[in-house]
Amino acid sequence: MSGPFIAVDWGTTNRRAYVIDKSEVVASEQDDGGVLSVPAGGFPASVADLRARHGGLPMLLAGMVGSNRGWHDAGYVAAPAGIAELAGNLVSPVEGVDIVPGVCRDSGGRQDVMRGEEVQLLGAVAAGLAPADALLCQPGTHVKWAVMQGGVLADFTSSMTGEMFAMLKAHSLIGSEMTGGVDADEEFRKGVEASADGDLLAALFGVRAASVLGARAPGAAAAYVSGLLLGTDCRARIKPGETVYLLADGLLARLYSAAISIAGGEAVIVDSHAAFIAGITRIRDMTP
Amino acid sequence: MSGPFIAVDWGTTNRRAYVIDKSEVVASEQDDGGVLSVPAGGFPASVADLRARHGGLPMLLAGMVGSNRGWHDAGYVAAPAGIAELAGNLVSPVEGVDIVPGVCRDSGGRQDVMRGEEVQLLGAVAAGLAPADALLCQPGTHVKWAVMQGGVLADFTSSMTGEMFAMLKAHSLIGSEMTGGVDADEEFRKGVEASADGDLLAALFGVRAASVLGARAPGAAAAYVSGLLLGTDCRARIKPGETVYLLADGLLARLYSAAISIAGGEAVIVDSHAAFIAGITRIRDMTP
Repeated sequence: MSGPFIAVDWGTTNRRAYVIDKSEVVASEQDDGGVLSVPAGGFPASVADLRARHGGLPMLLAGMVGSNRGWHDAGYVAAPAGIAELAGNLVSPVEGVDIVPGVCRDSGGRQDVMRGEEVQLLGAVAAGLAPADALLCQPGTHVKWAVMQGGVLADFTSSMTGEMFAMLKAHSLIGSEMTGGVDADEEFRKGVEASADGDLLAALFGVRAASVLGARAPGAAAAYVSGLLLGTDCRARIKPGETVYLLADGLLARLYSAAISIAGGEAVIVDSHAAFIAGITRIRDMTP
Repeated sequence: MSGPFIAVDWGTTNRRAYVIDKSEVVASEQDDGGVLSVPAGGFPASVADLRARHGGLPMLLAGMVGSNRGWHDAGYVAAPAGIAELAGNLVSPVEGVDIVPGVCRDSGGRQDVMRGEEVQLLGAVAAGLAPADALLCQPGTHVKWAVMQGGVLADFTSSMTGEMFAMLKAHSLIGSEMTGGVDADEEFRKGVEASADGDLLAALFGVRAASVLGARAPGAAAAYVSGLLLGTDCRARIKPGETVYLLADGLLARLYSAAISIAGGEAVIVDSHAAFIAGITRIRDMTP
């Protein structure tokens, strides 16, 4: 399909909408109207409001809005999957509004799912922000590591890294030790280095022991634990010398760049908003 | 010292007291009067009550009662440590009552602490329940793996295995999936086998993906996650063919025996109560 449309990256806690015309963003808005903020039965009104604000254009939605906790379950297409597979499996809850499906993998006894990230990943490659054969990483609550082959999302692994950090801080024995800020500083690097032991469960208890024995300065443990977790994640994913295309900015970009480097790889930062625009525009273009 | 005495294994949530005379238990009691249940300033009265119930005999306390969250901080002796080091570093908050110190290790950038387990570990070896050179394991919230050399606690590693399971079940995205019982069944074994990948953070997210894709029967995930965690713990600790002396009974003995076996080791069950009695009696015997 051609012509201007409204693209929405509709996640769990946030929502970004773009009016796209001839591959250019001509208007955009962002709010905290993520899936969790929408009351039961509230999606039709929320979608209609958003659409009305932007001239009633056709809409193409991606992200958790298409999950069973969102508006309408848009299902999954199986990896390997490209733009064509996404465009060919849109789900339309109401006239003029389509939702992009997620991507799943299920082989060798290992299952994985993503929803929303696939647009960025395929968009990054389609726009030439990353090569057609590459390892891509999207940090977050559930980090996505995607293996792209021939421009297609060939396989991927999700890791509970961000959620684990938040859970340890809020609910574990070492939570009260996890004070101080997190940045790609010396303590963070020590954590990434310690993750080379491949013994996360013991290293986490060691944070408590270091505190009891006065072996770590107060305010240093949060950065150390972040380093342990990101280091564990990166080491499980990266071959020596491998380049990782990192769809992140700000703090997460700094942390993952440092962890990837210490783990033996090299990070290249990719603009994730540009990747989304590129991906969603191509899905729209290929929609029958 | 000789003569009858009251030995108390005083943990975080439970408390066991034994009256020991000539190495034999002549009376015992158990309650939920662990450290967390004692109100601020309540330890002197709690200790006096317990002592009065058993004829005002001398008392020897071990466990979290000697921590900074308990009655009186009994400090730590450094590993390697034996019965003599514990007996030579008792702390006496009041006349006739001694507390056993914990054990710490701090070298090569790795810190660890234990408090209470050292009595069982050294007692197991002293009583011949385990060899003088052996790997011992005490499952629990924070699993202790102890390397005994020449009858002495040479080194040890604590692992956050039990706490991690409880935290995942109560607070994580996969908590709602972690239904069903946990035993050393087929799903548990699958989890232990999956832990061979050495990729815990991804395997945990995979529990959610398996649920979304219908790849695991409802009610099977709790056992699977338990297997993942125990398998990860055991694989980090055990050399192929190694014997592990397991201070556990009931469900934890079944789970760890199975995990140790799948990880390539062999478990021998040791009576942890007998080990405590043996250890605390020898500490008392060696007290100057």
